[in-house]
Amino acid sequence: MNVEQLMRCARAARMDVALAGTEQKNAALEAIACALDAGRDAIKAANLEDVNAARASGMRESLIDRLTLTDKRIDSAIEGVRTLIALPDPVGGEDASVVRPNGLRIARRRVPLGVVGIIYEARPNVTVDAASLCLKAGNVCVLRGGKEAIRSNIALAKIMREAVASVGLPADAVCLCEDTSRDSANAMMNAVGLLDVLIPRGGAGLIRAVVENAKVPVIETGVGICHIYCDKGCDHRMAIDIVENAKCSRPSVCNAAEVLIIHSLEAAALLPRIKAALDAKNVELRCDKRAWAILRRSENVKEAVPEDFRTEFLDYVMAVMVVDDVQEAIDEINAHGSGHSESIVTNDYGRARQFQDRVDAAAVYVNASTRFTDGFEFGFGGEIGISTQKLHARGPMGLEALTTIKYTIMGDGQVRR
Amino acid sequence: MNVEQLMRCARAARMDVALAGTEQKNAALEAIACALDAGRDAIKAANLEDVNAARASGMRESLIDRLTLTDKRIDSAIEGVRTLIALPDPVGGEDASVVRPNGLRIARRRVPLGVVGIIYEARPNVTVDAASLCLKAGNVCVLRGGKEAIRSNIALAKIMREAVASVGLPADAVCLCEDTSRDSANAMMNAVGLLDVLIPRGGAGLIRAVVENAKVPVIETGVGICHIYCDKGCDHRMAIDIVENAKCSRPSVCNAAEVLIIHSLEAAALLPRIKAALDAKNVELRCDKRAWAILRRSENVKEAVPEDFRTEFLDYVMAVMVVDDVQEAIDEINAHGSGHSESIVTNDYGRARQFQDRVDAAAVYVNASTRFTDGFEFGFGGEIGISTQKLHARGPMGLEALTTIKYTIMGDGQVRR
Repeated sequence: MNVEQLMRCARAARMDVALAGTEQKNAALEAIACALDAGRDAIKAANLEDVNAARASGMRESLIDRLTLTDKRIDSAIEGVRTLIALPDPVGGEDASVVRPNGLRIARRRVPLGVVGIIYEARPNVTVDAASLCLKAGNVCVLRGGKEAIRSNIALAKIMREAVASVGLPADAVCLCEDTSRDSANAMMNAVGLLDVLIPRGGAGLIRAVVENAKVPVIETGVGICHIYCDKGCDHRMAIDIVENAKCSRPSVCNAAEVLIIHSLEAAALLPRIKAALDAKNVELRCDKRAWAILRRSENVKEAVPEDFRTEFLDYVMAVMVVDDVQEAIDEINAHGSGHSESIVTNDYGRARQFQDRVDAAAVYVNASTRFTDGFEFGFGGEIGISTQKLHARGPMGLEALTTIKYTIMGDGQVRR
Repeated sequence: MNVEQLMRCARAARMDVALAGTEQKNAALEAIACALDAGRDAIKAANLEDVNAARASGMRESLIDRLTLTDKRIDSAIEGVRTLIALPDPVGGEDASVVRPNGLRIARRRVPLGVVGIIYEARPNVTVDAASLCLKAGNVCVLRGGKEAIRSNIALAKIMREAVASVGLPADAVCLCEDTSRDSANAMMNAVGLLDVLIPRGGAGLIRAVVENAKVPVIETGVGICHIYCDKGCDHRMAIDIVENAKCSRPSVCNAAEVLIIHSLEAAALLPRIKAALDAKNVELRCDKRAWAILRRSENVKEAVPEDFRTEFLDYVMAVMVVDDVQEAIDEINAHGSGHSESIVTNDYGRARQFQDRVDAAAVYVNASTRFTDGFEFGFGGEIGISTQKLHARGPMGLEALTTIKYTIMGDGQVRR
């Protein structure tokens, strides 16, 4: 079956999935959780073939790590599915209802998006995450993962489809595109009338390609050029902890910080202490002129080029800039940030307020690490991605981001004069 | 100034407009209303030049009508601006706030989109509508109207910019692109990082071109292939009134009905009565085989081709189809409708429910005309367009559709472990 036929099957199934009751959807999720548990040997066997092939083809170890499904990761996927069962059903309710002067009752009902396409890379855990989030929100998904994970994905999709069918829902609630060529991705980007939305999950190149080429509606996710600004008079201990956490706790993810901005009155005392904390992970600092003047005798420090202040390093590298006031920091963030997560460390009420009001990003923190921008940390019970655009959803996208609205209007013969 | 420079000016002004208080924004709107009133002679003089040039170039009278600004239309634009003043400010409030177990307080604040681009045709009333809606929601707009209306638009923009500046807001809150070439439209579609959203308003061709070519986020508006389904056992008088209103009250707009679907048990009696009502406006009916069997001896009736059931006629033309049950009507609507507005005329509770649950459209009516899908009729005090996509906004887009969210997070040193 080619991807267009697959999308047509998904489309045909969408209304039955959309109208499934909460109990039936939860039963399907529980069946998925049980089937993943029971099927873990088959999943790991398929995954081992993927990993061996990837290793033979010379894939980098960090990517092989993302590709690998261990028992622990399968447990975590199962736990993720069960977390969704416990969450309220996002669809069906009407959150506003008015009676107009002519007697028409207009209500706004939350309904599923319909058919959600997801293009992602060689991370088979996304297959379970995405399918179960879509299902809980009443959507059918069309999953198109990376070719290196295809055997794992086929095994996972087979298990999930059987589980869904076992509770009387269409197996096509979970559709996997087995064609991992560029053609299938292009077909999904052009599937006007077949896909209601397309979500790319992965590196900046993938996301850019989908955003620029898709004719179907897209939600842009993920690129994070996040800043920590250490304000005049900030608590140095807190600043050190937050910068260290935001940079080092997991540098490969989008909510990790890439740029440190520091007030000129604090820099001389604070910057060397931050540097010392970051040295534990051998973080390379790329410094503007004023930071360079302070740190130039240290190891692992370079003079920055302008590009360093607009790069998502995803690594133990951090650009450093010294500024003279909070507005300068805000301007830098609004000019070169990616609108993901930004944080100020401050003790000043007015500047905290100014920063949160004027920084144009999905999540704006005072005195906390940017690493909290995440569906689980926000209490959404999971996420389909983190939106860095402003339309439809912004920040971590949980179940509600996978829904839309429909106006239902009840009349008794009204016509418009 | 070319359009890229214009968009940069808009971008530079966006934060001041976004953070303007409700009183200042309302003062700007009142200043616009007064200035439009005081400046109507200049507006009409500029508009007359546009109209004369258009007529000389052979523009159709229906389009010249849309281009023309009369005193009545200026009054209506002023009234629209004043309606916005009375509406609540959609931005600034936080609609959810939770404290997480680690003590982080996470709130969801409603904020402006930022810079809103609008590409439209030769309808100068859109210039005032769009600018004032954007302003009330704290957005800066970049307006790019059709070349035939450029003199009117320049006059209107000048008046509005002066009015905005008179209350201390940046004049660049209202930016008009004076370059009406294809190049400027393309530049806007490609303005990643400059425009936060692009909204096309106009005919199907314009909208399709923008949706397919834009690299910036787009909200699709407008195309309406709307159906009226007359169910088994429906009230014939109500059915006639609703079909007549949905087809004839203003056939050139997107919420007018294009297709009549009628249950086979009602068709023989009801179809000739509907035909008689539509004869007052010489509506041409394009009939499927079963409708043709009933109406073939009448005037102004043709046999339909399949294309007739997926065409937005925007004229006194209607396709007619006979079906055997409500599900057949729903399937036809979901297959060939545009997801705009759909209506069932029925006395049956179960089928009313089935229709509203299963029809996949922005507005689904029971026993009312589709003509009500409109920001004013829905009580939104205006609209920037009617979204027929599912992302971000669906149906009439009022002020809230011109906003997004920002998470504000207050901590006291939290880091993620």
